[in-house]
Amino acid sequence: MSGRLAVIGLGPGDPRYLTAEAADALAEADALYGYGPYLDRIPVRKGQSRHPSDNREEAVRAGEALRRAAHGGRVAVVSGGDPGVFAMAAAICEQIETGPDAWRALDVVVVPGITAMLAVAARIGAPLGHDFCALSLSDNLKPWPLIERRLDAAAAAGFVIALYNPMSRTRPWQFGNAIDRLRHHLPPGTPVIFGRAVGRPDERVELTTLGAAGAPVDMATLVIVGTRDTRVIERPGRSPLVYTPRAAAEVSA
Amino acid sequence: MSGRLAVIGLGPGDPRYLTAEAADALAEADALYGYGPYLDRIPVRKGQSRHPSDNREEAVRAGEALRRAAHGGRVAVVSGGDPGVFAMAAAICEQIETGPDAWRALDVVVVPGITAMLAVAARIGAPLGHDFCALSLSDNLKPWPLIERRLDAAAAAGFVIALYNPMSRTRPWQFGNAIDRLRHHLPPGTPVIFGRAVGRPDERVELTTLGAAGAPVDMATLVIVGTRDTRVIERPGRSPLVYTPRAAAEVSA
Repeated sequence: MSGRLAVIGLGPGDPRYLTAEAADALAEADALYGYGPYLDRIPVRKGQSRHPSDNREEAVRAGEALRRAAHGGRVAVVSGGDPGVFAMAAAICEQIETGPDAWRALDVVVVPGITAMLAVAARIGAPLGHDFCALSLSDNLKPWPLIERRLDAAAAAGFVIALYNPMSRTRPWQFGNAIDRLRHHLPPGTPVIFGRAVGRPDERVELTTLGAAGAPVDMATLVIVGTRDTRVIERPGRSPLVYTPRAAAEVSA
Repeated sequence: MSGRLAVIGLGPGDPRYLTAEAADALAEADALYGYGPYLDRIPVRKGQSRHPSDNREEAVRAGEALRRAAHGGRVAVVSGGDPGVFAMAAAICEQIETGPDAWRALDVVVVPGITAMLAVAARIGAPLGHDFCALSLSDNLKPWPLIERRLDAAAAAGFVIALYNPMSRTRPWQFGNAIDRLRHHLPPGTPVIFGRAVGRPDERVELTTLGAAGAPVDMATLVIVGTRDTRVIERPGRSPLVYTPRAAAEVSA
Protein backbone atom coordinates (compact mmCIF):
# COMPACT_ATOMS: atom_id res chain seq x y z
CA MET A 1 0.00 0.00 0.00
CA SER A 2 1.66 3.21 -1.08
CA GLY A 3 0.61 6.50 0.37
CA ARG A 4 0.84 9.99 -0.92
CA LEU A 5 1.58 13.26 0.77
CA ALA A 6 0.59 16.59 -0.76
CA VAL A 7 1.75 19.87 0.75
CA ILE A 8 -0.83 22.38 -0.41
CA GLY A 9 -0.83 26.16 -0.54
CA LEU A 10 -4.21 27.73 0.23
CA GLY A 11 -3.22 31.25 -0.76
CA PRO A 12 -4.01 34.26 1.43
CA GLY A 13 -7.33 33.20 2.86
CA ASP A 14 -10.12 33.62 0.37
CA PRO A 15 -11.17 30.62 -1.76
CA ARG A 16 -10.88 32.74 -4.90
CA TYR A 17 -7.08 32.63 -4.48
CA LEU A 18 -7.06 28.84 -4.57
CA THR A 19 -5.67 27.31 -7.74
CA ALA A 20 -7.50 24.51 -9.54
CA GLU A 21 -4.59 22.19 -8.71
CA ALA A 22 -4.89 22.95 -4.98
CA ALA A 23 -8.65 22.44 -5.01
CA ASP A 24 -8.20 19.03 -6.69
CA ALA A 25 -5.44 18.00 -4.28
CA LEU A 26 -7.64 18.91 -1.30
CA ALA A 27 -10.53 16.88 -2.72
CA GLU A 28 -8.33 13.78 -3.19
CA ALA A 29 -7.04 13.64 0.39
CA ASP A 30 -8.45 11.31 3.03
CA ALA A 31 -6.75 13.19 5.88
CA LEU A 32 -5.98 16.90 6.32
CA TYR A 33 -3.23 18.24 8.59
CA GLY A 34 -2.46 21.84 9.38
CA TYR A 35 -2.69 24.83 11.65
CA GLY A 36 -6.27 24.95 12.91
CA PRO A 37 -7.33 28.29 11.36
CA TYR A 38 -6.06 27.12 7.94
CA LEU A 39 -8.04 23.88 8.17
CA ASP A 40 -11.12 25.93 9.08
CA ARG A 41 -11.00 27.53 5.63
CA ILE A 42 -11.51 24.19 3.87
CA PRO A 43 -15.05 22.89 3.28
CA VAL A 44 -15.80 19.72 5.26
CA ARG A 45 -15.97 16.56 3.15
CA LYS A 46 -17.43 13.24 4.20
CA GLY A 47 -14.82 10.57 4.89
CA GLN A 48 -12.01 13.10 5.20
CA SER A 49 -10.46 13.35 8.68
CA ARG A 50 -9.06 16.62 10.02
CA HIS A 51 -6.04 16.97 12.29
CA PRO A 52 -5.56 20.54 13.46
CA SER A 53 -2.43 21.50 15.37
CA ASP A 54 -0.85 24.61 16.80
CA ASN A 55 1.15 27.16 14.85
CA ARG A 56 4.48 26.22 16.42
CA GLU A 57 4.21 22.48 15.92
CA GLU A 58 5.43 22.16 12.34
CA ALA A 59 7.89 19.33 12.99
CA VAL A 60 5.44 17.22 14.99
CA ARG A 61 2.69 17.83 12.43
CA ALA A 62 5.03 16.87 9.59
CA GLY A 63 5.98 13.62 11.35
CA GLU A 64 2.36 12.65 11.97
CA ALA A 65 1.38 13.35 8.37
CA LEU A 66 4.33 11.34 7.04
CA ARG A 67 3.53 8.39 9.30
CA ARG A 68 -0.02 8.32 8.05
CA ALA A 69 1.08 8.55 4.41
CA ALA A 70 3.59 5.73 4.99
CA HIS A 71 0.65 3.59 6.15
CA GLY A 72 -1.07 4.14 2.85
CA GLY A 73 -3.00 7.33 3.50
CA ARG A 74 -3.67 10.06 0.99
CA VAL A 75 -2.57 12.91 3.19
CA ALA A 76 -2.75 16.65 2.64
CA VAL A 77 -0.76 19.10 4.74
CA VAL A 78 -1.98 22.65 4.23
CA SER A 79 -0.23 26.00 4.52
CA GLY A 80 -1.61 29.49 4.17
CA GLY A 81 -0.06 31.24 1.17
CA ASP A 82 2.59 29.11 -0.52
CA PRO A 83 3.86 26.01 1.31
CA GLY A 84 7.42 26.64 0.13
CA VAL A 85 7.71 30.16 1.63
CA PHE A 86 8.38 30.03 5.39
CA ALA A 87 5.90 27.18 5.68
CA MET A 88 5.30 23.43 5.73
CA ALA A 89 7.18 22.20 2.64
CA ALA A 90 10.59 22.70 4.28
CA ALA A 91 9.34 21.19 7.56
CA ILE A 92 8.19 18.08 5.66
CA CYS A 93 11.53 17.82 3.84
CA GLU A 94 13.41 18.09 7.15
CA GLN A 95 11.46 15.13 8.52
CA ILE A 96 11.86 13.10 5.32
CA GLU A 97 15.63 13.57 5.37
CA THR A 98 16.09 12.32 8.92
CA GLY A 99 13.15 9.89 9.15
CA PRO A 100 12.75 6.20 8.28
CA ASP A 101 13.53 4.90 4.77
CA ALA A 102 9.82 4.48 4.07
CA TRP A 103 9.37 8.25 4.11
CA ARG A 104 11.88 8.66 1.28
CA ALA A 105 9.89 6.14 -0.76
CA LEU A 106 6.68 8.18 -0.54
CA ASP A 107 5.03 10.06 -3.37
CA VAL A 108 5.41 13.67 -2.20
CA VAL A 109 4.01 16.61 -4.13
CA VAL A 110 4.10 20.30 -3.32
CA VAL A 111 1.21 22.38 -4.66
CA PRO A 112 2.14 26.06 -4.88
CA GLY A 113 -0.10 28.89 -3.73
CA ILE A 114 -0.28 32.69 -3.81
CA THR A 115 2.15 33.77 -1.09
CA ALA A 116 1.29 36.81 1.05
CA MET A 117 3.76 39.22 -0.57
CA LEU A 118 2.21 38.66 -4.01
CA ALA A 119 -1.32 39.17 -2.67
CA VAL A 120 -0.44 42.33 -0.73
CA ALA A 121 1.57 43.74 -3.65
CA ALA A 122 -1.34 43.13 -6.04
CA ARG A 123 -3.69 45.04 -3.77
CA ILE A 124 -1.70 48.26 -4.06
CA GLY A 125 -0.04 48.15 -7.48
CA ALA A 126 3.36 46.65 -8.16
CA PRO A 127 5.75 47.38 -5.27
CA LEU A 128 7.67 44.16 -6.10
CA GLY A 129 8.08 45.32 -9.70
CA HIS A 130 11.86 45.22 -9.48
CA ASP A 131 14.39 42.95 -7.71
CA PHE A 132 13.14 41.99 -4.25
CA CYS A 133 13.72 39.66 -1.33
CA ALA A 134 11.62 37.82 1.23
CA LEU A 135 12.95 37.74 4.76
CA SER A 136 11.42 36.21 7.89
CA LEU A 137 11.86 38.43 10.94
CA SER A 138 11.40 35.49 13.29
CA ASP A 139 14.53 34.78 15.29
CA ASN A 140 13.14 31.53 16.64
CA LEU A 141 15.17 29.53 14.12
CA LYS A 142 18.04 31.88 13.32
CA PRO A 143 20.09 34.37 15.32
CA TRP A 144 19.03 38.02 15.25
CA PRO A 145 22.47 39.24 14.03
CA LEU A 146 21.96 37.16 10.87
CA ILE A 147 18.64 38.92 10.25
CA GLU A 148 20.34 42.29 10.74
CA ARG A 149 23.05 41.36 8.27
CA ARG A 150 20.44 40.39 5.70
CA LEU A 151 18.46 43.61 6.24
CA ASP A 152 21.64 45.62 5.70
CA ALA A 153 22.63 43.66 2.59
CA ALA A 154 19.18 43.87 0.99
CA ALA A 155 18.62 47.57 1.67
CA ALA A 156 22.13 48.61 0.64
CA ALA A 157 21.88 46.71 -2.65
CA GLY A 158 18.47 48.20 -3.49
CA PHE A 159 16.19 45.17 -3.12
CA VAL A 160 12.55 45.75 -2.23
CA ILE A 161 12.11 43.86 1.06
CA ALA A 162 9.09 41.73 1.99
CA LEU A 163 9.09 41.00 5.72
CA TYR A 164 7.29 37.83 6.85
CA ASN A 165 6.47 37.03 10.51
CA PRO A 166 7.22 40.61 11.61
CA MET A 167 6.01 40.22 15.19
CA SER A 168 4.48 37.88 17.73
CA ARG A 169 3.74 37.82 21.46
CA THR A 170 7.19 36.39 22.17
CA ARG A 171 9.00 38.70 19.75
CA PRO A 172 7.87 42.23 20.65
CA TRP A 173 10.95 44.35 19.75
CA GLN A 174 12.25 42.77 16.57
CA PHE A 175 10.11 44.70 14.11
CA GLY A 176 10.99 48.11 15.54
CA ASN A 177 14.64 47.16 15.54
CA ALA A 178 14.43 46.10 11.88
CA ILE A 179 12.75 49.35 10.83
CA ASP A 180 15.39 51.37 12.70
CA ARG A 181 18.07 49.43 10.91
CA LEU A 182 16.52 50.06 7.50
CA ARG A 183 16.41 53.80 8.29
CA HIS A 184 20.21 53.82 8.15
CA HIS A 185 20.03 52.82 4.48
CA LEU A 186 16.84 54.36 3.11
CA PRO A 187 15.29 57.85 3.24
CA PRO A 188 12.33 58.53 5.59
CA GLY A 189 9.97 58.92 2.64
CA THR A 190 10.51 55.33 1.42
CA PRO A 191 7.06 53.75 0.94
CA VAL A 192 6.16 50.98 3.40
CA ILE A 193 3.06 48.79 3.04
CA PHE A 194 1.35 46.82 5.80
CA GLY A 195 -0.95 44.10 4.51
CA ARG A 196 -3.18 41.85 6.57
CA ALA A 197 -5.84 39.26 5.83
CA VAL A 198 -5.95 39.99 2.10
CA GLY A 199 -9.19 38.75 0.57
CA ARG A 200 -10.89 38.31 3.94
CA PRO A 201 -13.58 40.55 5.46
CA ASP A 202 -11.05 42.06 7.87
CA GLU A 203 -8.55 42.88 5.11
CA ARG A 204 -6.34 45.87 5.84
CA VAL A 205 -3.74 47.27 3.49
CA GLU A 206 -2.07 50.46 4.69
CA LEU A 207 0.49 52.71 3.07
CA THR A 208 2.96 54.59 5.22
CA THR A 209 6.61 55.62 5.04
CA LEU A 210 9.78 54.31 6.60
CA GLY A 211 9.95 57.47 8.71
CA ALA A 212 6.44 56.98 10.07
CA ALA A 213 6.28 53.18 10.17
CA GLY A 214 5.51 52.07 13.67
CA ALA A 215 2.02 50.76 13.36
CA PRO A 216 1.39 47.68 15.44
CA VAL A 217 1.64 44.53 13.40
CA ASP A 218 1.06 40.92 14.25
CA MET A 219 2.21 37.58 12.93
CA ALA A 220 -0.38 37.70 10.14
CA THR A 221 0.85 41.01 8.74
CA LEU A 222 3.11 41.15 5.72
CA VAL A 223 5.27 44.26 5.39
CA ILE A 224 6.78 45.51 2.13
CA VAL A 225 9.56 48.10 2.34
CA GLY A 226 10.26 49.85 -0.95
CA THR A 227 13.50 51.22 -2.36
CA ARG A 228 14.65 54.74 -3.21
CA ASP A 229 13.01 54.19 -6.60
CA THR A 230 9.57 53.06 -5.36
CA ARG A 231 6.84 55.49 -6.48
CA VAL A 232 3.45 56.49 -5.11
CA ILE A 233 0.80 57.58 -7.62
CA GLU A 234 -1.89 59.73 -6.02
CA ARG A 235 -5.31 59.27 -7.62
CA PRO A 236 -8.30 61.58 -7.06
CA GLY A 237 -11.11 59.60 -5.43
CA ARG A 238 -9.11 56.36 -5.40
CA SER A 239 -6.44 54.88 -3.16
CA PRO A 240 -2.87 55.49 -4.32
CA LEU A 241 -0.97 53.01 -6.46
CA VAL A 242 2.53 52.05 -5.32
CA TYR A 243 5.08 50.54 -7.70
CA THR A 244 8.77 49.99 -8.16
CA PRO A 245 9.82 50.85 -11.73
CA ARG A 246 11.26 48.11 -13.91
CA ALA A 247 14.23 50.30 -14.79
CA ALA A 248 17.02 51.24 -12.36
CA ALA A 249 19.71 53.68 -13.36
CA GLU A 250 22.25 52.98 -10.64
CA VAL A 251 22.75 51.32 -7.29
CA SER A 252 19.80 52.80 -5.50
CA ALA A 253 21.11 52.88 -1.95
CA MET B 1 -18.79 55.39 -19.09
CA SER B 2 -16.13 54.14 -16.73
CA GLY B 3 -13.75 51.42 -17.78
CA ARG B 4 -11.82 48.90 -15.85
CA LEU B 5 -8.37 47.45 -16.26
CA ALA B 6 -7.36 44.14 -14.72
CA VAL B 7 -3.74 42.96 -14.80
CA ILE B 8 -4.02 39.21 -14.50
CA GLY B 9 -1.47 36.54 -13.61
CA LEU B 10 -1.92 33.29 -15.52
CA GLY B 11 0.58 31.30 -13.48
CA PRO B 12 3.24 29.12 -15.09
CA GLY B 13 1.36 27.88 -18.13
CA ASP B 14 -1.10 25.17 -17.20
CA PRO B 15 -4.73 26.09 -16.47
CA ARG B 16 -4.58 24.17 -13.20
CA TYR B 17 -2.35 26.94 -11.80
CA LEU B 18 -4.99 29.57 -12.51
CA THR B 19 -6.76 30.94 -9.44
CA ALA B 20 -10.54 31.25 -9.35
CA GLU B 21 -10.13 35.04 -9.15
CA ALA B 22 -8.02 35.08 -12.34
CA ALA B 23 -10.48 32.85 -14.20
CA ASP B 24 -13.35 35.18 -13.24
CA ALA B 25 -11.39 38.29 -14.23
CA LEU B 26 -10.60 36.77 -17.64
CA ALA B 27 -14.26 35.92 -18.19
CA GLU B 28 -15.39 39.47 -17.39
CA ALA B 29 -13.10 41.20 -19.89
CA ASP B 30 -14.23 42.41 -23.29
CA ALA B 31 -10.66 42.87 -24.58
CA LEU B 32 -7.48 40.89 -23.81
CA TYR B 33 -3.98 42.32 -24.20
CA GLY B 34 -0.70 40.47 -23.77
CA TYR B 35 2.28 38.71 -25.20
CA GLY B 36 0.96 36.44 -27.96
CA PRO B 37 1.92 33.06 -26.43
CA TYR B 38 0.23 34.03 -23.13
CA LEU B 39 -2.99 34.99 -24.93
CA ASP B 40 -2.87 31.64 -26.74
CA ARG B 41 -3.33 29.88 -23.38
CA ILE B 42 -6.71 31.51 -22.81
CA PRO B 43 -9.85 29.87 -24.23
CA VAL B 44 -11.51 31.98 -26.93
CA ARG B 45 -14.77 33.64 -25.85
CA LYS B 46 -17.39 35.17 -28.12
CA GLY B 47 -17.42 38.96 -28.02
CA GLN B 48 -13.96 39.17 -26.46
CA SER B 49 -11.31 40.77 -28.66
CA ARG B 50 -7.64 39.74 -28.48
CA HIS B 51 -4.67 42.05 -28.96
CA PRO B 52 -1.41 40.12 -29.00
CA SER B 53 1.88 41.98 -28.97
CA ASP B 54 5.57 41.20 -28.83
CA ASN B 55 7.53 40.38 -25.68
CA ARG B 56 9.46 43.66 -25.69
CA GLU B 57 6.50 45.98 -26.16
CA GLU B 58 5.29 46.29 -22.57
CA ALA B 59 5.03 50.09 -22.54
CA VAL B 60 3.16 50.29 -25.85
CA ARG B 61 0.84 47.44 -24.81
CA ALA B 62 0.15 49.12 -21.46
CA GLY B 63 -0.72 52.40 -23.19
CA GLU B 64 -3.10 50.72 -25.64
CA ALA B 65 -4.86 48.82 -22.87
CA LEU B 66 -5.23 51.98 -20.75
CA ARG B 67 -6.62 53.97 -23.69
CA ARG B 68 -9.24 51.32 -24.30
CA ALA B 69 -10.19 51.16 -20.62
CA ALA B 70 -10.44 54.97 -20.52
CA HIS B 71 -12.99 54.69 -23.35
CA GLY B 72 -15.13 52.45 -21.18
CA GLY B 73 -13.73 49.01 -22.00
CA ARG B 74 -13.39 46.13 -19.58
CA VAL B 75 -9.80 45.36 -20.37
CA ALA B 76 -7.58 42.51 -19.19
CA VAL B 77 -3.81 42.61 -19.56
CA VAL B 78 -2.29 39.18 -18.96
CA SER B 79 1.12 38.11 -17.69
CA GLY B 80 2.59 34.66 -17.32
CA GLY B 81 3.23 33.87 -13.66
CA ASP B 82 2.45 36.83 -11.40
CA PRO B 83 1.88 40.25 -13.01
CA GLY B 84 3.76 42.00 -10.18
CA VAL B 85 7.03 40.07 -10.62
CA PHE B 86 9.07 41.40 -13.57
CA ALA B 87 5.87 41.72 -15.55
CA MET B 88 3.00 43.94 -16.67
CA ALA B 89 1.74 45.45 -13.39
CA ALA B 90 4.75 47.78 -13.09
CA ALA B 91 4.57 48.65 -16.80
CA ILE B 92 0.91 49.64 -16.36
CA CYS B 93 1.74 51.75 -13.28
CA GLU B 94 4.50 53.53 -15.19
CA GLN B 95 2.03 54.54 -17.91
CA ILE B 96 -0.64 55.57 -15.38
CA GLU B 97 1.82 57.84 -13.57
CA THR B 98 2.87 59.75 -16.67
CA GLY B 99 -0.32 59.47 -18.75
CA PRO B 100 -3.48 61.60 -18.96
CA ASP B 101 -5.58 62.32 -15.83
CA ALA B 102 -8.27 59.92 -17.06
CA TRP B 103 -5.92 57.00 -16.53
CA ARG B 104 -5.56 57.85 -12.84
CA ALA B 105 -9.37 57.83 -12.53
CA LEU B 106 -9.65 54.23 -13.81
CA ASP B 107 -10.60 51.21 -11.75
CA VAL B 108 -7.36 49.19 -11.83
CA VAL B 109 -7.03 45.77 -10.21
CA VAL B 110 -4.06 43.43 -10.12
CA VAL B 111 -4.87 39.73 -9.89
CA PRO B 112 -1.93 37.75 -8.50
CA GLY B 113 -0.70 34.47 -9.95
CA ILE B 114 1.78 31.70 -9.17
CA THR B 115 5.14 33.16 -10.14
CA ALA B 116 7.76 30.90 -11.75
CA MET B 117 10.02 30.58 -8.71
CA LEU B 118 7.16 29.19 -6.60
CA ALA B 119 6.18 26.68 -9.30
CA VAL B 120 9.75 25.49 -9.90
CA ALA B 121 10.47 25.29 -6.16
CA ALA B 122 7.32 23.22 -5.59
CA ARG B 123 8.38 20.74 -8.26
CA ILE B 124 11.57 19.83 -6.41
CA GLY B 125 10.79 20.31 -2.70
CA ALA B 126 11.35 23.57 -0.84
CA PRO B 127 14.52 25.28 -2.06
CA LEU B 128 13.00 28.68 -1.11
CA GLY B 129 12.33 27.40 2.43
CA HIS B 130 14.46 30.13 3.99
CA ASP B 131 15.16 33.80 3.19
CA PHE B 132 15.40 34.33 -0.57
CA CYS B 133 15.51 36.96 -3.29
CA ALA B 134 14.28 37.32 -6.85
CA LEU B 135 16.62 39.03 -9.28
CA SER B 136 16.18 39.69 -13.00
CA LEU B 137 19.38 39.08 -14.95
CA SER B 138 18.21 41.29 -17.80
CA ASP B 139 20.40 44.35 -18.20
CA ASN B 140 18.02 45.95 -20.69
CA LEU B 141 16.59 48.20 -17.96
CA LYS B 142 19.44 48.38 -15.45
CA PRO B 143 23.23 48.45 -15.70
CA TRP B 144 25.10 45.16 -15.38
CA PRO B 145 27.28 46.43 -12.47
CA LEU B 146 24.09 46.87 -10.42
CA ILE B 147 23.16 43.24 -11.09
CA GLU B 148 26.65 42.17 -10.01
CA ARG B 149 26.36 44.17 -6.81
CA ARG B 150 23.03 42.51 -6.02
CA LEU B 151 24.39 39.03 -6.75
CA ASP B 152 27.29 39.69 -4.38
CA ALA B 153 25.04 41.08 -1.65
CA ALA B 154 22.53 38.24 -1.84
CA ALA B 155 25.06 35.42 -1.93
CA ALA B 156 27.25 36.89 0.81
CA ALA B 157 24.26 37.35 3.12
CA GLY B 158 22.99 33.81 2.56
CA PHE B 159 19.82 34.44 0.55
CA VAL B 160 18.61 31.73 -1.81
CA ILE B 161 18.61 33.42 -5.23
CA ALA B 162 15.91 33.02 -7.88
CA LEU B 163 17.15 34.30 -11.25
CA TYR B 164 14.52 35.51 -13.71
CA ASN B 165 15.22 36.26 -17.40
CA PRO B 166 18.59 34.52 -17.26
CA MET B 167 19.35 34.70 -20.98
CA SER B 168 18.10 35.80 -24.38
CA ARG B 169 19.39 36.10 -27.93
CA THR B 170 20.65 39.61 -27.23
CA ARG B 171 22.12 38.75 -23.80
CA PRO B 172 24.33 35.70 -24.39
CA TRP B 173 27.07 36.14 -21.73
CA GLN B 174 25.22 37.48 -18.70
CA PHE B 175 24.19 34.15 -17.19
CA GLY B 176 27.70 32.67 -17.32
CA ASN B 177 29.08 35.84 -15.79
CA ALA B 178 26.51 35.69 -12.96
CA ILE B 179 27.32 32.05 -12.19
CA ASP B 180 31.06 32.85 -12.14
CA ARG B 181 30.38 35.67 -9.75
CA LEU B 182 28.34 33.46 -7.40
CA ARG B 183 31.22 30.93 -7.37
CA HIS B 184 33.29 33.51 -5.45
CA HIS B 185 30.78 33.31 -2.60
CA LEU B 186 29.41 29.77 -2.60
CA PRO B 187 31.00 26.29 -2.73
CA PRO B 188 30.94 24.28 -5.99
CA GLY B 189 28.50 21.78 -4.47
CA THR B 190 25.77 24.39 -3.92
CA PRO B 191 22.54 23.04 -5.45
CA VAL B 192 21.29 24.85 -8.56
CA ILE B 193 17.90 24.17 -10.15
CA PHE B 194 16.89 24.95 -13.74
CA GLY B 195 13.13 24.99 -14.27
CA ARG B 196 11.34 25.46 -17.55
CA ALA B 197 7.73 25.27 -18.71
CA VAL B 198 6.41 23.92 -15.40
CA GLY B 199 3.06 22.27 -15.88
CA ARG B 200 3.38 22.10 -19.66
CA PRO B 201 4.15 19.01 -21.77
CA ASP B 202 7.72 20.18 -22.33
CA GLU B 203 8.37 20.77 -18.61
CA ARG B 204 12.00 20.34 -17.58
CA VAL B 205 13.30 20.67 -14.05
CA GLU B 206 16.97 19.83 -13.64
CA LEU B 207 19.18 19.69 -10.57
CA THR B 208 22.85 20.53 -10.88
CA THR B 209 25.50 22.28 -8.80
CA LEU B 210 27.09 25.69 -8.93
CA GLY B 211 30.35 24.02 -9.99
CA ALA B 212 28.70 22.23 -12.91
CA ALA B 213 26.04 24.80 -13.87
CA GLY B 214 26.52 25.78 -17.48
CA ALA B 215 23.51 24.23 -19.12
CA PRO B 216 22.03 26.38 -21.83
CA VAL B 217 19.04 28.31 -20.62
CA ASP B 218 16.64 30.60 -22.37
CA MET B 219 14.36 33.46 -21.38
CA ALA B 220 11.70 31.01 -20.16
CA THR B 221 14.01 29.26 -17.70
CA LEU B 222 13.95 30.10 -14.01
CA VAL B 223 17.13 29.34 -12.08
CA ILE B 224 17.30 28.83 -8.31
CA VAL B 225 20.71 28.97 -6.66
CA GLY B 226 20.77 27.54 -3.13
CA THR B 227 22.84 28.55 -0.12
CA ARG B 228 25.50 26.69 1.87
CA ASP B 229 22.63 25.26 3.90
CA THR B 230 20.51 23.94 0.99
CA ARG B 231 20.14 20.14 1.18
CA VAL B 232 19.59 17.40 -1.38
CA ILE B 233 17.68 14.29 -0.24
CA GLU B 234 18.41 11.29 -2.45
CA ARG B 235 15.45 8.93 -2.77
CA PRO B 236 15.63 5.40 -4.18
CA GLY B 237 13.47 5.17 -7.29
CA ARG B 238 12.39 8.81 -7.07
CA SER B 239 13.89 12.13 -8.04
CA PRO B 240 15.75 13.92 -5.24
CA LEU B 241 14.10 16.51 -3.03
CA VAL B 242 15.92 19.82 -2.54
CA TYR B 243 15.19 22.12 0.37
CA THR B 244 16.65 24.94 2.39
CA PRO B 245 16.14 24.34 6.13
CA ARG B 246 14.06 26.78 8.11
CA ALA B 247 16.80 27.11 10.70
CA ALA B 248 20.12 28.87 10.11
CA ALA B 249 22.85 28.81 12.73
CA GLU B 250 25.05 31.61 11.44
CA VAL B 251 25.74 33.79 8.43
CA SER B 252 25.98 31.12 5.82
CA ALA B 253 28.40 32.71 3.39
